[in-house]
Amino acid sequence: MKGFAFAGIHAGIKKNGLKDLGLILCEKPATAAAVFTKNKVKAAPVILGQQMIQKGICQAVLVNSGNANCFTGDQGIRDAKRSADLVAKTFGISEDRVMVSSTGVIGAPLPMEKLESGIPELKANLHTGTLTDFATAILTTDLSIKTVEMTADFETSSGRKTIAMTGVAKGSGMIRPDMATMLAYVVTDAHISPPDLKQALTRACDKSFNRITVDGDTSTNDTLLCLAGGTGNAHITDDASRAVFQDLLEKVCLDLAVQIVRDGEGATKLVKITVNGAATRQDAFKAAEAIAHSNLVKTAIYGEDPNWGRITAAAGRSGAEVDPDRMDLYVDTVALVIQGKWQGKTAEKQAAEVMKSTDIPLILDLNLGEYSDSFLFCDFSENYVKINADYRS
Amino acid sequence: MKGFAFAGIHAGIKKNGLKDLGLILCEKPATAAAVFTKNKVKAAPVILGQQMIQKGICQAVLVNSGNANCFTGDQGIRDAKRSADLVAKTFGISEDRVMVSSTGVIGAPLPMEKLESGIPELKANLHTGTLTDFATAILTTDLSIKTVEMTADFETSSGRKTIAMTGVAKGSGMIRPDMATMLAYVVTDAHISPPDLKQALTRACDKSFNRITVDGDTSTNDTLLCLAGGTGNAHITDDASRAVFQDLLEKVCLDLAVQIVRDGEGATKLVKITVNGAATRQDAFKAAEAIAHSNLVKTAIYGEDPNWGRITAAAGRSGAEVDPDRMDLYVDTVALVIQGKWQGKTAEKQAAEVMKSTDIPLILDLNLGEYSDSFLFCDFSENYVKINADYRS
Repeated sequence: MKGFAFAGIHAGIKKNGLKDLGLILCEKPATAAAVFTKNKVKAAPVILGQQMIQKGICQAVLVNSGNANCFTGDQGIRDAKRSADLVAKTFGISEDRVMVSSTGVIGAPLPMEKLESGIPELKANLHTGTLTDFATAILTTDLSIKTVEMTADFETSSGRKTIAMTGVAKGSGMIRPDMATMLAYVVTDAHISPPDLKQALTRACDKSFNRITVDGDTSTNDTLLCLAGGTGNAHITDDASRAVFQDLLEKVCLDLAVQIVRDGEGATKLVKITVNGAATRQDAFKAAEAIAHSNLVKTAIYGEDPNWGRITAAAGRSGAEVDPDRMDLYVDTVALVIQGKWQGKTAEKQAAEVMKSTDIPLILDLNLGEYSDSFLFCDFSENYVKINADYRS
Repeated sequence: MKGFAFAGIHAGIKKNGLKDLGLILCEKPATAAAVFTKNKVKAAPVILGQQMIQKGICQAVLVNSGNANCFTGDQGIRDAKRSADLVAKTFGISEDRVMVSSTGVIGAPLPMEKLESGIPELKANLHTGTLTDFATAILTTDLSIKTVEMTADFETSSGRKTIAMTGVAKGSGMIRPDMATMLAYVVTDAHISPPDLKQALTRACDKSFNRITVDGDTSTNDTLLCLAGGTGNAHITDDASRAVFQDLLEKVCLDLAVQIVRDGEGATKLVKITVNGAATRQDAFKAAEAIAHSNLVKTAIYGEDPNWGRITAAAGRSGAEVDPDRMDLYVDTVALVIQGKWQGKTAEKQAAEVMKSTDIPLILDLNLGEYSDSFLFCDFSENYVKINADYRS
């Protein structure tokens, strides 16, 4: 995209020789907004990032994988600052316009000598560097890179305008609402004010990254950052253009969120649980979240079993108002339970057939009101346990 | 124990030929109290049990495994009532003094013909029947029976009195606070009033069964029932005797709770997380619960890794007030983190050594206040996934 350059190299932070240091550089200072983890244990770059983003301007983003710079005390803050300073000096920009992010192992100090040699190398890489290089450099246990490119058009009095948006993210464990070990960066060529961008990003995050779960854990480093370079022809200044921008941003974030869940640790299936007919907005959220987080539901889905008892029981313990005798449960279009009654073996067989696919829509209707919500989650396999138990060996 | 008889037989509800129908019969009506699941989806026997326990009297308990009689609508309630009636007639007692419990698969109607032939068979078995027979008949995926027998003495003006208590329980999935697919029965020869028993049982439950978790799910059938036969010499009528009774009941419940966690689905280790120094009682609970429920913590423990980052991050997202720079974390007596600082490789090696044992005490001190709480939980192995994904094949 015009106005943005990407790079990604192996600086030596990861011992396996894979890329571990990435950079996004904006031609000129961009409007910036971010959402960070709500975990009270925050990594140093998050603490620093929350300060620097206040001004709503950012020109460079440095991301390292292999080390989270978390639980590293004052040294961690100093290291994060020094990394930002190095980027600022190397690229000739102001150090308060550099965002740094880290992801990886907690508790070990950032290997600053690797960053000191890596940052100049990033500069050399910048001419040939690609989005893919950056997307690769930020990965941890992800199996694949996560990128998306989309555009949207809208008509104005001065002609047709286009917004281009590029997103890149990493998962893949510790994923749940309120952010997770999740880093996501969205760049756009639109021209937008910092407050408008902040509002749009918060809403988009709520509908995407805050509606996914892999394992129910939340990390210390999660960051969603959006940079609007203003290098395109679209100016987001009225309700019509705001709506187009919002819609595009939500699509980009949701696309990245789906990619994260699909690549969840050990995941073999992507499930969307939609709860309809809840008495309150909160009830819809609670029921959907409880189902998405239930290990018993997740293992049943891995086993390709339409275990409606586990799904309805998860809703029952969620705190949401439910009446077992009014619940309907659909697996895609198959009615498995109607008004609390199991619909028999034929329905169960049809539902089991749906469960064999990789994308499974579940719809639970509480039939108590008007509210809906949905969550995306993955199944739970032996591989999740292996990845998270044997990670050091 | 004097005044109580136990029985357990194979009535044919389970297809594998194992015992599936159990009975506790009291010589005379016993004082009774119970705690039930808080899941809004309740199985028929729980709905019925909540009514019958109001009077505080019970003389017989019928438990079947292999079928939960849940999501079975009006038919389920009729079947549960009919089971109680059959027990009442067979043993010549009043039907409103019969408690029924069910555990097993959700959604299928109770096979009444098996119960109709099984209940008379229980009567024949009662002479030779043992606690072990009953304990076996109530199991589902448990690997071992769970029983405990304890006594306590206290001095009164009319001499030394003894309380005898026998407990029996089943786990082993869907275990979390607010009860789970957990059935537990405690019988005692003490003489106690229904309100005193109810109060004692609620408190004991809160300190035991509500402080354990296997997989974070809550079931539809959970029941903890205590029967006081009054056949011994102890009368619980004053503060001194109440304290002895309370202490004994808590010990019995905690012993059963530990047995349930130890036999959690796929469990290889028993972990006790104690949170000290919380600013509020609620904070201590929240932090301990979040750690006990974290899949990342549980898989790390299975991998025998003292992953303090996952433990402290779980506390950080729990909603409890925490300050990362003040946290201390001990693995048994090994100080792994002090004031937010990792204590180095030697400490980590010592902690890793502790992790190899089957019983692992973790102590997290938030250093923010006076409050403590603790949770018992098990680790998370590939076997948990296997049990819960392949259960139908």
